[in-house]
Amino acid sequence: MQINFSKNKQKEVSNIFFSIFNARIPCPCPNFAAVRIHEVSDFYELIKVLKKNNHMKIAVAKGDGIGPEIMDAVLKIFSANHVPLEYDFVDMGKWVFDKGFNNGMTPEAKQTIENLGLLFKGPMETPKGKGVKSINVTARKTWNTFANKRDFRTLHGVDTVFSKAGIPIDITVVRENIEDTYGGIEHMLTHDVALSRRFITRPGSMQVIRYAFEMAKQKKAKRITCVHKANIMKITDGLFLECFQEVAKEYPELKADDIIVDDLCMKLVTRPDLFDVLVLTNLQGDIVSDLCAGLVGGLGFAPSANIGDHISIFEAVHGTAPDIAGKNIANPTALLLSGLAMLRHVGLTENAAVIENALLYTLENGTHTGDFGDKTIPSVNTTQFADTIISNFGKKPNIGAREIIANEPGTPTPLKLETNPMMISKESESETIVGVDLFIESDEQPNAIAEKCKRHAGVKFNLINISNRGTQVWPTGSVYTNLVNQYNVRFESIEDEPLNQQDVIGLYVSMSGNFKICSFELLNMWAGKKAYSLAQGQ
Amino acid sequence: MQINFSKNKQKEVSNIFFSIFNARIPCPCPNFAAVRIHEVSDFYELIKVLKKNNHMKIAVAKGDGIGPEIMDAVLKIFSANHVPLEYDFVDMGKWVFDKGFNNGMTPEAKQTIENLGLLFKGPMETPKGKGVKSINVTARKTWNTFANKRDFRTLHGVDTVFSKAGIPIDITVVRENIEDTYGGIEHMLTHDVALSRRFITRPGSMQVIRYAFEMAKQKKAKRITCVHKANIMKITDGLFLECFQEVAKEYPELKADDIIVDDLCMKLVTRPDLFDVLVLTNLQGDIVSDLCAGLVGGLGFAPSANIGDHISIFEAVHGTAPDIAGKNIANPTALLLSGLAMLRHVGLTENAAVIENALLYTLENGTHTGDFGDKTIPSVNTTQFADTIISNFGKKPNIGAREIIANEPGTPTPLKLETNPMMISKESESETIVGVDLFIESDEQPNAIAEKCKRHAGVKFNLINISNRGTQVWPTGSVYTNLVNQYNVRFESIEDEPLNQQDVIGLYVSMSGNFKICSFELLNMWAGKKAYSLAQGQ
Repeated sequence: MQINFSKNKQKEVSNIFFSIFNARIPCPCPNFAAVRIHEVSDFYELIKVLKKNNHMKIAVAKGDGIGPEIMDAVLKIFSANHVPLEYDFVDMGKWVFDKGFNNGMTPEAKQTIENLGLLFKGPMETPKGKGVKSINVTARKTWNTFANKRDFRTLHGVDTVFSKAGIPIDITVVRENIEDTYGGIEHMLTHDVALSRRFITRPGSMQVIRYAFEMAKQKKAKRITCVHKANIMKITDGLFLECFQEVAKEYPELKADDIIVDDLCMKLVTRPDLFDVLVLTNLQGDIVSDLCAGLVGGLGFAPSANIGDHISIFEAVHGTAPDIAGKNIANPTALLLSGLAMLRHVGLTENAAVIENALLYTLENGTHTGDFGDKTIPSVNTTQFADTIISNFGKKPNIGAREIIANEPGTPTPLKLETNPMMISKESESETIVGVDLFIESDEQPNAIAEKCKRHAGVKFNLINISNRGTQVWPTGSVYTNLVNQYNVRFESIEDEPLNQQDVIGLYVSMSGNFKICSFELLNMWAGKKAYSLAQGQ
Repeated sequence: MQINFSKNKQKEVSNIFFSIFNARIPCPCPNFAAVRIHEVSDFYELIKVLKKNNHMKIAVAKGDGIGPEIMDAVLKIFSANHVPLEYDFVDMGKWVFDKGFNNGMTPEAKQTIENLGLLFKGPMETPKGKGVKSINVTARKTWNTFANKRDFRTLHGVDTVFSKAGIPIDITVVRENIEDTYGGIEHMLTHDVALSRRFITRPGSMQVIRYAFEMAKQKKAKRITCVHKANIMKITDGLFLECFQEVAKEYPELKADDIIVDDLCMKLVTRPDLFDVLVLTNLQGDIVSDLCAGLVGGLGFAPSANIGDHISIFEAVHGTAPDIAGKNIANPTALLLSGLAMLRHVGLTENAAVIENALLYTLENGTHTGDFGDKTIPSVNTTQFADTIISNFGKKPNIGAREIIANEPGTPTPLKLETNPMMISKESESETIVGVDLFIESDEQPNAIAEKCKRHAGVKFNLINISNRGTQVWPTGSVYTNLVNQYNVRFESIEDEPLNQQDVIGLYVSMSGNFKICSFELLNMWAGKKAYSLAQGQ
């Protein structure tokens, strides 16, 4: 299963990755188990073989509740269309948690998915109140699926207020899938003050943004828009926006712009037809993608793909609907659309287009399961819905037919790793430590705190300012600013003289005599520029 | 202007505040300049006088661009309706920045607003690229307007996809206005990793949630819903949700529930009629309130109120539209609706209802400015729009008429302070320090870092785990987890033995020999419970 590269080839592969992701990956040792290649002479050969190969194996997890019946319906459609995929069914979901596996999958399932690099999954339930983490989130984070991609298109036959108003929707949301507050790094600083560390990284942003641009190019998008709140989160969302603008330069043929997230949401409910591809950070992306799902009729019509370097996951994100499970009446559309995204991801574009056209034709003609559609037309069950799609292979809808493009399989997740890839996008510039923010617990008034802090400043530091909930309360401020019992005290070096960690430790030791210090952040200066937000008036 | 209380009375007033805000306020010295009271014997007398008084003075800032003309239109309507308010016009806005005032207002303006406690403002522009902070955000934060309240109602005559679909909207969004990432506390930890500190506090949450419940009761709301992302941000949004559930117990007559923010947004674009009052943290509230503005036709129809203990601000949040400024064609509806919210805030409920009914009647009958409405009916200009409303005083719309409730002025911002109020909601339980999270810069592999860290653990600490972007990479993890050059290393005390700050300093000093430590967070245990998020598998 292992491919051994010469040192030179390793370097070459590493460089390819660097150019793709603007990231450094030490010594990758590629392998692509999905196509069962045991030895190839180098990476290019591997890619060539992948391109020729037209029979791949993927992992399939049917899921809980309605999962098995909608997955069966989708695989029946795939099979009828002679989709050249083999399936390795793996054990994941609530019943696996119930058997005592804390991450909701058996070790064999994990191994199979890591070997095959592709997982197609039905909806799954994570047991509540048992302290176990969501199986969906664990899978996305552990396997580093850095981009969540979701396509939202008007489906004729699925009525929404927008379809009734004649406003067409064709939006693709690409959401960063690892960072932001989803890191789950949270602390109580005092009994009253909770903190969540929201981080955005340059390589992480680069990776998802590059993916979004490549995807937009493939989609022949009319516009790609970076969505952010950089007017408030100037450093974190500012970094994301900067990465977007950097990558945009490499795609002069694409119209690239940006919009503030709240403004976007207002426009999405009035003029959704103005947007095409959106790329966002994690939480904002989460909110916007569900909003867009609502625009086209809900989660039952919204596919989802989690794209990684190594492993990608295609899934329906709606619930498991235990109330109707086993009745053969569930709507398989979202899972089918996710499956079609997967076919396109592995280059099976012809199969995807034929099946999608049949689906669109079926919906357009009023065939529907019980959960949507024209109530004057009797609904069909899950199997009948799948059979109708199969009987419509070769037909095209009046509106929105997909172009048939010949299959060209072989672009998925090509690497198997032996160590964790380290992504470093930017080499160090001249850097100095110029101060520290100390976060202290206190219920005293700002002036009293300032008096004490000044005594600790010593010969190296100046007390610059004190703020409370981000609002400056010393040296200037307003008595109308309410306080909580946690202050940020900022010390900077005198005349921006470089400091070392020992200086900071000295201050910390001194200050700890007077205060409980909940946390600190070093203040860095890089290439003469302050790498931290300034307080009001600073 | 100063009211002096006896020590006992001071305590009593403080207790009232404690019961209202669940917060401790040291020695408040009340005054309410808006009603020009120079001395009253105690707080209750003050309130009584305020209730009787029916002629108040408020600060008015006309704003930039179309601000002056729409403000004139609104004040003309107020005047025609004999609204018992006096206006003190203050200097705020772009032209004040241009004069060299860095916060966009003159010192006299600031003083007047702090004296009067109420500001009614038109749209304002903050000059770009001059490094000055947004005048709107500065005002909200400095004066601690903790709640942003916005009412979104279907206006007949303003066509939207939802009005065409016959879906009525009557949603009030109450957004926390100070905390969250809006504190603007941001640092670059490495060249690749940016951090924003997202904080949520118990007293801050209590304040806005109590306000939302009181308002919902007044509105006779059918439902009040806490919107959050506590499934991901378990400690911060968990705290907000906990406060909501605590306050909900005091209002058994109100149906109180909660919803995940992404789910809400999907439902808002399909079934907005299901919701009534929403209460949210700052960023989520920002996004949801603009989404709701879109539902009813955009910012031109969405009022905004910033409610504080001491000072409240009522404003139009749309732009200054410099392209049409001075042409007398702008739409004053949003500013008028904000003004009506202000009238209700000070108890002028009758004036507000009469004017609102006239506005609704006017819209219903097709009168419109050039930016909206039935294009087959010629549009009117700003003055004509105001005059039509005035001519319709006493008339009621067919749909959505407001009940006329007699004026009862005198409940606004009653206190003038001499020191900053300190809000402490929860007295200390038994607390111990049980460890520390150190955030270090490194591009080494997790195992190599662990080996070094173990050597620094000494006799007091255990190395518990190492994570990267919130995903555990040591002692267990996956090679498919991509890394950035910033790790979180968690040390805990052996067998949860209590530590002191000296122990933490000792570890910090030792670790700093091997690593650059960007920041740390103390790990606290309160009443036997860990006050920080656990890593996966911990």
